[in-house]
Amino acid sequence: MSMRIDMNSDLGESFGPWVMGDDKAVLASVSSANVACGFHGGDAEIMKKTVSLCKAAGVAVGAHVSHPDLQGFGRRNMACSPAEVYAYCLYQIGALQAFCLSHNVALRHVKPHGALYNMAGKDEALALAICEGIASVDPRLILLALSGSKMIDAAHQTGLPCAREIFADRAYEEDGSLVARGKPGAMITDEDLAIARVVQMVTTGKVAAITGKEIALQADSVCVHGDNAHALAFVKKIRAALEAAGIKVKAMGGMQ
Amino acid sequence: MSMRIDMNSDLGESFGPWVMGDDKAVLASVSSANVACGFHGGDAEIMKKTVSLCKAAGVAVGAHVSHPDLQGFGRRNMACSPAEVYAYCLYQIGALQAFCLSHNVALRHVKPHGALYNMAGKDEALALAICEGIASVDPRLILLALSGSKMIDAAHQTGLPCAREIFADRAYEEDGSLVARGKPGAMITDEDLAIARVVQMVTTGKVAAITGKEIALQADSVCVHGDNAHALAFVKKIRAALEAAGIKVKAMGGMQ
Amino acid sequence: MSMRIDMNSDLGESFGPWVMGDDKAVLASVSSANVACGFHGGDAEIMKKTVSLCKAAGVAVGAHVSHPDLQGFGRRNMACSPAEVYAYCLYQIGALQAFCLSHNVALRHVKPHGALYNMAGKDEALALAICEGIASVDPRLILLALSGSKMIDAAHQTGLPCAREIFADRAYEEDGSLVARGKPGAMITDEDLAIARVVQMVTTGKVAAITGKEIALQADSVCVHGDNAHALAFVKKIRAALEAAGIKVKAMGGMQ
Amino acid sequence: MSMRIDMNSDLGESFGPWVMGDDKAVLASVSSANVACGFHGGDAEIMKKTVSLCKAAGVAVGAHVSHPDLQGFGRRNMACSPAEVYAYCLYQIGALQAFCLSHNVALRHVKPHGALYNMAGKDEALALAICEGIASVDPRLILLALSGSKMIDAAHQTGLPCAREIFADRAYEEDGSLVARGKPGAMITDEDLAIARVVQMVTTGKVAAITGKEIALQADSVCVHGDNAHALAFVKKIRAALEAAGIKVKAMGGMQ
Repeated sequence: MSMRIDMNSDLGESFGPWVMGDDKAVLASVSSANVACGFHGGDAEIMKKTVSLCKAAGVAVGAHVSHPDLQGFGRRNMACSPAEVYAYCLYQIGALQAFCLSHNVALRHVKPHGALYNMAGKDEALALAICEGIASVDPRLILLALSGSKMIDAAHQTGLPCAREIFADRAYEEDGSLVARGKPGAMITDEDLAIARVVQMVTTGKVAAITGKEIALQADSVCVHGDNAHALAFVKKIRAALEAAGIKVKAMGGMQ
Repeated sequence: MSMRIDMNSDLGESFGPWVMGDDKAVLASVSSANVACGFHGGDAEIMKKTVSLCKAAGVAVGAHVSHPDLQGFGRRNMACSPAEVYAYCLYQIGALQAFCLSHNVALRHVKPHGALYNMAGKDEALALAICEGIASVDPRLILLALSGSKMIDAAHQTGLPCAREIFADRAYEEDGSLVARGKPGAMITDEDLAIARVVQMVTTGKVAAITGKEIALQADSVCVHGDNAHALAFVKKIRAALEAAGIKVKAMGGMQ
Repeated sequence: MSMRIDMNSDLGESFGPWVMGDDKAVLASVSSANVACGFHGGDAEIMKKTVSLCKAAGVAVGAHVSHPDLQGFGRRNMACSPAEVYAYCLYQIGALQAFCLSHNVALRHVKPHGALYNMAGKDEALALAICEGIASVDPRLILLALSGSKMIDAAHQTGLPCAREIFADRAYEEDGSLVARGKPGAMITDEDLAIARVVQMVTTGKVAAITGKEIALQADSVCVHGDNAHALAFVKKIRAALEAAGIKVKAMGGMQ
Repeated sequence: MSMRIDMNSDLGESFGPWVMGDDKAVLASVSSANVACGFHGGDAEIMKKTVSLCKAAGVAVGAHVSHPDLQGFGRRNMACSPAEVYAYCLYQIGALQAFCLSHNVALRHVKPHGALYNMAGKDEALALAICEGIASVDPRLILLALSGSKMIDAAHQTGLPCAREIFADRAYEEDGSLVARGKPGAMITDEDLAIARVVQMVTTGKVAAITGKEIALQADSVCVHGDNAHALAFVKKIRAALEAAGIKVKAMGGMQ
């Protein structure tokens, strides 16, 4: 049996005249792109260009859906109702779908962004709203969400395919949730340790929680960032380590 | 041979807490709805509700695409490039398409709104950008645009199906363009005359220009507005007159 | 000693082509207007017009500051930081101040809107950010906020003048906070009772909490709404009852 | 008699999480900053920070007012009416004024941005709307606009102080207008020539038009950009050349 994992990254987060990130460089190392859909970043022209870059790089395209908070980059919690979130998901997925259609590229997954990701990870009603929104557009779309979160539960409940996401640079609580950023030890700063943990999660389905206790954690996709030269170098290093460990880096979907 | 025409109206133009128009009342009399997609009016929740209302009323759904000018309601000319307009069309069509998919309703047509309608009617590059945008999402979508305009030419050039729109309450120049609103005689204020002209355009393909000269004018769809009680009454009156003249009111598409 | 109270209402909440409320009618009955500043409603032209209407009606002008959430009308809780809220207050107060300067009208007060009003009423850091924001523009501006809330405390702490707001149609907890809308008895639906309570609060500084216990409550301004004909009639009724009880309806400020 | 000129640059054009330009570096070389006010760039927090940086650098603060077109960075012509432009000016000037008040810094000038600058330079009604808008907030504010444009005429007509702006890297037509960017010779690419022309304009009030004919051109301020390292180096070079020619670089206002 061959082991595999997806590497996903957030792309297309520029807006109008403002550039964010080096999308081309990131695309050389990942297998899936979460493309901003205009609510926290991205605009129509940038979405068009990003889908085109993904196609050229052979990277799977997903919709990165957000609260409507451009100024706050979708990072601020907002008390949107499940009905609002449902409609926002449809709107953004549809908008990106049009650029996929025009490039003859399949839309493959949907990942909630920022505050919506965090809120829906712990709120069943929001998680269900997202999954139902995705399923109502295309039930073959894959939800990409935090391993062990309410969103994964909601995908199962809705019958939506899902991929469980892990983070190389974050510590986990015993219940599989991420240790809050403020807490000591929340970030794994030792790169070699971070990489070893990812390889372990993929190969064994287990990882040490911050308490030291070993916990089970399903890992279908690892989230990476290419915000700067250092981050980009780390992305390449993870990929190389995964491949050296005999793990295939491959987009979600078509999983046997 | 049976005569037919479509009656179209702009719907879903509320935004957030602000209500515009009486969509339910208009839906009782028209065959096609141009649904705002968030750029000049409408938002995700309103789009969802509007598609639902259209489905219940058996009215065909189209995307009413606009410049990004919410505050100006898409009525101000904006020097967007053809590339920008192309991308804006995809974004808005896709967003509405998602709500159609979730309601199991077919998206049928696309109509440019306000300033974009006026600008693209006279500008070949914009008109082509719109048609290519529509065709890149789904080449079966029908462009709904001013009879005799550059947009109709562009649809022919692009191989996109199109429907030629007429206005009951507007006078025409000899070249088939609308007499500018400022000019004397631009508006047909006599309701009976307006209706007689519509019936004549549908049945004979001819109408008197403002100069008195008879011109040819193809009429596939007549644009009506339901902004107030008086306008709504006029919509009903047109429909009744059309039907009395043996003209079937029917959504565009499937035309023989 | 003469008794007095201010009657305040939210105005200028239209946006672009969308009309909200009947501002002229409300202005005939109130002494202070909370003018939307573009973040939850209102835009530059509407602010200009609203200040002009206030001036003509002799009604005091205040800035109704909000989170940046136009689509949600500022009613959704948003996790904006105190630093963000501080800057948002300055921006909105300044924008309205320009229209006051151009009309030679004094800006008199600032009232947080919707979700910001509710959040800052219970959150000292947000309340201080708002008060410091106001004071940094003009320390003579009056904060209008819920009687007994953290905002009133923050105004005292900052040395900012403040006016304590009461609601005619809402029940109070024993600690002076509003009974949450969901709870039984939260709304005072009997108009005569509502009016009697307002008169009592003004004349005695006391009111019965929802538990029946009499609590102290300072009342400098009563909030009224003119959303529809019924609400407008109630506004007139309150004003008449206040005046009949010998209470002068007068804008905040210049209080002896 | 001592010669002087102002050097102005556009600042505070970041938005939310997106950074644009290196404001600190530019501030070291200019005497006036045109601060974005949220319509084409900038937001409340960025305005606060930018005014603070200007104060620290001893650089005069002005409002850089724009059409409401964030996505297009205010660079697309928009058919806003003079009444709309008037109101937009007040709104943006007022918003920035608040940050000036909170920093105890004087707001000194107003410069229209991008498409508004270009349109109002040739359109008397827009130019007057801008000048009247500025004067209605504070008639001591200085309009900064293209030397020889309709805006300068409008300032004279309105009695508003104004400063005439020149461009180092642009050729001029015989009527003093800028040669359109598309035309051959529109850009002065030889840096030494560009600098020599600026020195000549300041010292003699004359410059060679693109036709070779010498024309009169008043120069109160020269516009410079610090978008990249090369541009920043050029800004320093201009300043050094001006000072070497005995020309004092000093903010507009208080001119003798």
